Amino acid sequence: MYYIGVDLGGTNIAAAIVTEEGKIIRRSSVPTLRGREYPEILKDMADLCLRLMEEEGLEEKDIHSIGIGSPGSVDPENGILVYANNLKFDNVPMRAEMQKYISVPVYIENDANSAALGESISGAAKKYGDSVTVTLGTGVGGGVIVNGKILTGSFHAGAELGHHVIDMNGDKCSCGRHGCWEVYASATALIRDASTAATQNPDSLLFTMVEGNVERMNAKIPFDAAQQGDSVASQVLEQYIRYLAVGIVNIINIFEPEAIVIGGGVSAQKENLITPLEEEVKRHIYGGVLKTKLLTSNLGNDAGIIGAAMLSKIYG
Amino acid sequence: MYYIGVDLGGTNIAAAIVTEEGKIIRRSSVPTLRGREYPEILKDMADLCLRLMEEEGLEEKDIHSIGIGSPGSVDPENGILVYANNLKFDNVPMRAEMQKYISVPVYIENDANSAALGESISGAAKKYGDSVTVTLGTGVGGGVIVNGKILTGSFHAGAELGHHVIDMNGDKCSCGRHGCWEVYASATALIRDASTAATQNPDSLLFTMVEGNVERMNAKIPFDAAQQGDSVASQVLEQYIRYLAVGIVNIINIFEPEAIVIGGGVSAQKENLITPLEEEVKRHIYGGVLKTKLLTSNLGNDAGIIGAAMLSKIYG
Repeated sequence: MYYIGVDLGGTNIAAAIVTEEGKIIRRSSVPTLRGREYPEILKDMADLCLRLMEEEGLEEKDIHSIGIGSPGSVDPENGILVYANNLKFDNVPMRAEMQKYISVPVYIENDANSAALGESISGAAKKYGDSVTVTLGTGVGGGVIVNGKILTGSFHAGAELGHHVIDMNGDKCSCGRHGCWEVYASATALIRDASTAATQNPDSLLFTMVEGNVERMNAKIPFDAAQQGDSVASQVLEQYIRYLAVGIVNIINIFEPEAIVIGGGVSAQKENLITPLEEEVKRHIYGGVLKTKLLTSNLGNDAGIIGAAMLSKIYG
Repeated sequence: MYYIGVDLGGTNIAAAIVTEEGKIIRRSSVPTLRGREYPEILKDMADLCLRLMEEEGLEEKDIHSIGIGSPGSVDPENGILVYANNLKFDNVPMRAEMQKYISVPVYIENDANSAALGESISGAAKKYGDSVTVTLGTGVGGGVIVNGKILTGSFHAGAELGHHVIDMNGDKCSCGRHGCWEVYASATALIRDASTAATQNPDSLLFTMVEGNVERMNAKIPFDAAQQGDSVASQVLEQYIRYLAVGIVNIINIFEPEAIVIGGGVSAQKENLITPLEEEVKRHIYGGVLKTKLLTSNLGNDAGIIGAAMLSKIYG
């Protein structure tokens, strides 16, 4: 049997045929063209799945289930996308809509939760029990596996780890609160702080590497500059790691998972991120003994699609 | 059938016979006399249970199970108290020890987790699904019910909600971190802040009510003074509610439980605590809509003993 995972994004709908072991064997995508009504977007999604099946020579009887990872609040029980701000979707019956075109079971979950399931079942956290996946991107996304299940929250909006306050006197967050973790630990925050440091230090390698134009800053440049010995970049990273660690230690004290997986673009830094992060976390963990494994994603952007494909394993 | 719940404290061992419905029908306690070796303390615990049974005219066949709520890290699967700082207990085989004296199933959990289970099964959160119980005392204790189970953490020390940092530049906590929630939201913190305000405002009712001696301050006095119109006390409480709300909103964004139960001495204030807390939480919750119910404990100090009695319901 094969599984189909779908990642519904604001820009593209990506889908893949995934094996029992969580390996992608065929993938494709179509533009979301958001702004359209949901029946059109869902028809494109179904067509994408059917095309992948045809290309792979598979029929409905070969497909165990389809799983959709969607932005926003999701009601997995009823297969409904409750609300997704970026798609302007409100109570969309995704399961029912998909099943107009394909007669296989359809499951749906939030995309960050799907990514956490992907990492848990066939990614970095595979060897471990309960895990938390933290995605460092525009914001900080969270997905939590507790007692082998996804922590969805009672009203479909739990695990918003980026929106826990670590500095109650801090800067304003997009959510309206002050000092949320994502204000300090997102890739956006790293780019912001690196840009500021570069501007303030025109002699730095950090400044040279963006050719004096901080609009070219990205989350990789401070790591590259620091490795080449730039002390300005090192200071930016030290501070970023401190911010990241505050939230990681909070997550450990709250969930005490076996593993925490860091995803998103910053996680491409692998050991350059994890080694200093581990040192900082150990400095603040109770008793100084860190039992939780800190890992970087090994599924990368595929975590969501693979996790979506595996949704039947927990909801089936 | 009847259940026995035991609350192992640093000062007393309390035990009670509890009905199927979670009602205490007989209770007693003996001093812990801590500092003794564990076999002595566990023998006293077993004797206390046997005495309660005898007084109630019950035999082993009438007792479904015994549950023990213990401070520290607990391994419920193996019935072992892994570590309890205040008792200087290290890997104590509590289940095996108890069963030397009584032939009924014995379960063990952390005391804050037991309290959360008590509130969930027969207390304030009874009508609700997943819930979080926060105990405001010397510190801030946490117990979390997710998907109907206790969140224990992978290494027996999860749900330490009091030790999540809400102000990374804040004051030092007993755990070594800076700005933990319990530094601001414990009963100890309220007493400390009320004492400071009283000292600084000798004209205040707050100062008068402790007769000029802030060592007499307790967590009830600021509420009493505020109700009598003392603006100094009102300011202390406003700030305390703000601190409390930061952590409560964090918990909602992380767990999104159906209910949060506030326990500990401060919770005796009932609506005087919950009404302003709700207002403050609504100010900071995403979208301004508070779906999680905020409640005060209705089991009070019995939550732990009743929850312990009910442990078989989740581990049995």
